[in-house]
Amino acid sequence: MYELCKKLFPINRSLTGNGNRETLRLLKEIIPNITVKEVPSGTKCFDWVVPKEWNCNAAYLIDPEGKTICNYQNHNLHLVGYSIPINREISFEELNNHLYSLPELPDAIPYVTSYYEENWGFCISHTERLKLKKGMYKVVIDSELSDGSLTYGELLIKGNSKEEIFLSTYICHPSMGNNEISGPVLTSFLAKHINLLSNKRYSYRIIFIPETIGSIYYLSQNLTTMKERVVAGYNITCVGDNNNYSYLPSRYGETLSDKVAKHLIKYSKHNFIKYSYLDRASDERQYCAPGVDLPVCSIMRTKYAEYPEYHTSLDNLNFISEDGLNGALEVYKELIEILEKNYYYKVVILAEPKMSDRGLKHTISTKSSMVESKHLMNVLTYCDGSNDLIDIANILNVPVSAIYKEVEVLYKNDLVTRNSERYSL
Amino acid sequence: MYELCKKLFPINRSLTGNGNRETLRLLKEIIPNITVKEVPSGTKCFDWVVPKEWNCNAAYLIDPEGKTICNYQNHNLHLVGYSIPINREISFEELNNHLYSLPELPDAIPYVTSYYEENWGFCISHTERLKLKKGMYKVVIDSELSDGSLTYGELLIKGNSKEEIFLSTYICHPSMGNNEISGPVLTSFLAKHINLLSNKRYSYRIIFIPETIGSIYYLSQNLTTMKERVVAGYNITCVGDNNNYSYLPSRYGETLSDKVAKHLIKYSKHNFIKYSYLDRASDERQYCAPGVDLPVCSIMRTKYAEYPEYHTSLDNLNFISEDGLNGALEVYKELIEILEKNYYYKVVILAEPKMSDRGLKHTISTKSSMVESKHLMNVLTYCDGSNDLIDIANILNVPVSAIYKEVEVLYKNDLVTRNSERYSL
Amino acid sequence: MYELCKKLFPINRSLTGNGNRETLRLLKEIIPNITVKEVPSGTKCFDWVVPKEWNCNAAYLIDPEGKTICNYQNHNLHLVGYSIPINREISFEELNNHLYSLPELPDAIPYVTSYYEENWGFCISHTERLKLKKGMYKVVIDSELSDGSLTYGELLIKGNSKEEIFLSTYICHPSMGNNEISGPVLTSFLAKHINLLSNKRYSYRIIFIPETIGSIYYLSQNLTTMKERVVAGYNITCVGDNNNYSYLPSRYGETLSDKVAKHLIKYSKHNFIKYSYLDRASDERQYCAPGVDLPVCSIMRTKYAEYPEYHTSLDNLNFISEDGLNGALEVYKELIEILEKNYYYKVVILAEPKMSDRGLKHTISTKSSMVESKHLMNVLTYCDGSNDLIDIANILNVPVSAIYKEVEVLYKNDLVTRNSERYSL
Repeated sequence: MYELCKKLFPINRSLTGNGNRETLRLLKEIIPNITVKEVPSGTKCFDWVVPKEWNCNAAYLIDPEGKTICNYQNHNLHLVGYSIPINREISFEELNNHLYSLPELPDAIPYVTSYYEENWGFCISHTERLKLKKGMYKVVIDSELSDGSLTYGELLIKGNSKEEIFLSTYICHPSMGNNEISGPVLTSFLAKHINLLSNKRYSYRIIFIPETIGSIYYLSQNLTTMKERVVAGYNITCVGDNNNYSYLPSRYGETLSDKVAKHLIKYSKHNFIKYSYLDRASDERQYCAPGVDLPVCSIMRTKYAEYPEYHTSLDNLNFISEDGLNGALEVYKELIEILEKNYYYKVVILAEPKMSDRGLKHTISTKSSMVESKHLMNVLTYCDGSNDLIDIANILNVPVSAIYKEVEVLYKNDLVTRNSERYSL
Repeated sequence: MYELCKKLFPINRSLTGNGNRETLRLLKEIIPNITVKEVPSGTKCFDWVVPKEWNCNAAYLIDPEGKTICNYQNHNLHLVGYSIPINREISFEELNNHLYSLPELPDAIPYVTSYYEENWGFCISHTERLKLKKGMYKVVIDSELSDGSLTYGELLIKGNSKEEIFLSTYICHPSMGNNEISGPVLTSFLAKHINLLSNKRYSYRIIFIPETIGSIYYLSQNLTTMKERVVAGYNITCVGDNNNYSYLPSRYGETLSDKVAKHLIKYSKHNFIKYSYLDRASDERQYCAPGVDLPVCSIMRTKYAEYPEYHTSLDNLNFISEDGLNGALEVYKELIEILEKNYYYKVVILAEPKMSDRGLKHTISTKSSMVESKHLMNVLTYCDGSNDLIDIANILNVPVSAIYKEVEVLYKNDLVTRNSERYSL
Repeated sequence: MYELCKKLFPINRSLTGNGNRETLRLLKEIIPNITVKEVPSGTKCFDWVVPKEWNCNAAYLIDPEGKTICNYQNHNLHLVGYSIPINREISFEELNNHLYSLPELPDAIPYVTSYYEENWGFCISHTERLKLKKGMYKVVIDSELSDGSLTYGELLIKGNSKEEIFLSTYICHPSMGNNEISGPVLTSFLAKHINLLSNKRYSYRIIFIPETIGSIYYLSQNLTTMKERVVAGYNITCVGDNNNYSYLPSRYGETLSDKVAKHLIKYSKHNFIKYSYLDRASDERQYCAPGVDLPVCSIMRTKYAEYPEYHTSLDNLNFISEDGLNGALEVYKELIEILEKNYYYKVVILAEPKMSDRGLKHTISTKSSMVESKHLMNVLTYCDGSNDLIDIANILNVPVSAIYKEVEVLYKNDLVTRNSERYSL
């Protein structure tokens, strides 16, 4: 995954533009069945309109001494996203209103955008900014802002059921590592893993979109279907560093996605930081909005806005690592495994089944033989149709993986039936 | 308020009588639209009957040495409430059975009544009682106990809706400060404040009654209407001292009145003592009785029966103060403000509204701009029709006053609708 | 009770056989109206089949030196339950595979059975086992395993209602004290106590069965009736020692039986160990199985499997005592009393009744008179039709026995009605 991050990192992504197309092209090398879609500028979606397409060929300043600075070729964060074209000389005082820097992180170039109001600007480290001299500067932004389209990728991996697990990640940030290139890279590898799973219970709807406008557009087109089909979903972002693990719940934290995440967290060897939905700042804002109410939450490594390097040039390839990505991928694989296995189970025999007839209990009863069959009997007794596998594991106070084998034994011995829904009792 | 307390303090109030009429006359100087009503003796109300009217002209004892003691003219607590007329000489031994004092508070005259069985008695400080000599005493009680009426005051302040806030206070105790003259005084000033509120959402039903028999009579006449209309209510008593703040819940503590009170308490600068409904001893006994079940609780300063001066001559004008009364009035004004503003809100747009189009968000997106709009967006996301304003404030863990401005902005921008009831979702 | 334990202790009980018949015959001396029933071998019940009847006349080993050891006449635990007949010489090595001992309890003879697979074996203290010499042993088991029947006892004590309290205890363990002879002995004395109660509200269904197969057979015959009638039940076992008190809940711990037990425990002078349903190992496995779902839990002294002597010869007549049995009997009598008295109550008067008219309140009102009537008024105010007696006691935070007198006063004064079900409000 880290190698793919290195390839994707330098590309200038934004809400729209060729950088997004190039990003999707590289992701398709991992998971070829991504369909790339284009949405024309001006398309209405709920309260929003798809903006003009933005591309940039070059952007830099020439200082009073003739030196080129803030060169977009060197680092695409130098240019405020969606800056309009410009080519003229201006005074330092005028320029200064268009400069962005972070005094508290003097060596970092900040990440700034102005998507929905025409504007321009340059981002610069505070250290460099303090060295700027008064005088006339040449400002060159060779950008294009015109009717075009918004580009996103979509992928449906079919399973046995039309019920879907929904995975969403975003491709709209220029050269930054944890937020965001880790997201689409991990999602691609997770999709590849899901593709290889045999006999999938669920179908998987996976999208690679620009944040906010992308998810809003996607919902405007697919909400009805998604409300029918999506049983759980995750917004995949900030999955690249090797520091923390984090969980951000859905609006009320009570969806199936949350249930699985909270169970996994409780028994995980990793220590998770549990955030509130009030700490949200990504596409769960759309997926969990009132009336949308999709069952979506987020498992992350270090959460956006919770590390100083966030949204600066310091969130670079050194901030993320193969270990960081792998840790997150393992967690997502485990979430998928739990979801796939998480049926409701119901015993078919009244009173205790005669387990010894099925080779599931010693025929000689001693003090120790009673203990041995206890775990299996505990699983069985809560297979009463009102509990899914996570409920049973929670009652037994064990990770759900500690009862996978037991329910399989019960199911293969025809002692229980299973169902996607709670049984009506 | 303290000045009015001084005027009302000396009057001899009881369940009935001219003292109650005089009290209402003085309250009308603050809030003229109180209607005074008379209920004839003998009127049946639920399990009770309105008693005879009781008035007293004079009452005293003459001791064996000819000295007048326990003179009702000096302190109306000297006479047991509803004492029958009497004028004769009796021995100290017989008199002693009719004397009441408090050994644990030797300088206090206790407050004693015998409303429903004909009886007579005198209350005396224990210090004075110990000085009494054996011998013959003259007992003079020039009282009248005869068919008349029970007097109470009622006030309806009309708002936009027929839904009502109910306020009840009592006017049946003779010269005592916190319990009770603080109650009707504060209620009058609160009524005056409500009168002046413009564009009131609720109507306000406010009553000044004798405790127990008054509330029972009032319920017997108005229960059906009140059950239809009253959304919240408070029993206003013990609101005059400057020591504690107290909260006494309704029978299960789960009405709207309790919800508002508990929210206010949680974020108040004052420290509230939270009592149980088992500690009740005032008219919530009627309002929260099974089958009555009105949404009534109490916010008090120091609660009845929880201070030694309670129901004695020591609960006097020194025990209460303007500061004490003002503190309670501010709390009640705040309760009213919360109730008036406490609508259910529901966002009208699917997914996030485009806030920058409405000037509610910076168009330039930087790290700091994201933080600035967060509080408004947090309010908005829980405007999902299932939460009233208090619910939203509780979720955000802020006092409801910290989101008044935000919901107003959302409402004025047509981003949300509002409703008195939870939206059906 | 201890005397009866001494009589019953030596008898060799098993799932079936004459020992069980003899046990029931002795129990009938205490409670003659037990009906003894016989269920033929081969009878199908749910997933099980009633096994052959097993009886044993003699069983012993003769060691290489001609000495008789492991003599069933000396202690019936020496023989593995349901051992098949055998009479031959075998080597020590072969014999060793059929010997059971407990190294961790070297002086105890363990309790071992092989009900459902034909087998044989001897149980021996580990100390004795270590002394055994190599060589040829004579093995004599003069047992019979043939079509016959399973024997159990049943008793229905009729009350005013067809609703039933269900008590179950088992009679299938040979000479052991706490688990199990304490169970049927206490149950007999409890039945005798119930028989003598006048004007019983409930009927009592009481069974003396072999564990597991007995309860499964009984359910297979009676489940429909029981689901209609049984409102609460207890599985009575391990009620003989004087060490701990224990509570084992039903599957979710939320039945009426649990509610009564948990209330009693909370206010008991004894300290109860609260187990989880995951710790179950007796007939609640059947009564609380999914689909069976009878309201059954267990109150015990020291719980099975929680003391080292359990299922060994050390669980003998010294392990139990009259005090131990009496302590448990008192608890069960109290459970029965609570169940009998645990109605829903509803006040019939709106607002507070005039208690002084009924002699339930002082007519003179002083500070102290208010306190005196408070407890009765607290009970009354929660007689709102939604609470049973336990709910009211829980709200008042007192043992239910502290309000027996109060509800009786209210009921006799026609202030409340009562009902077996929650009132529809």
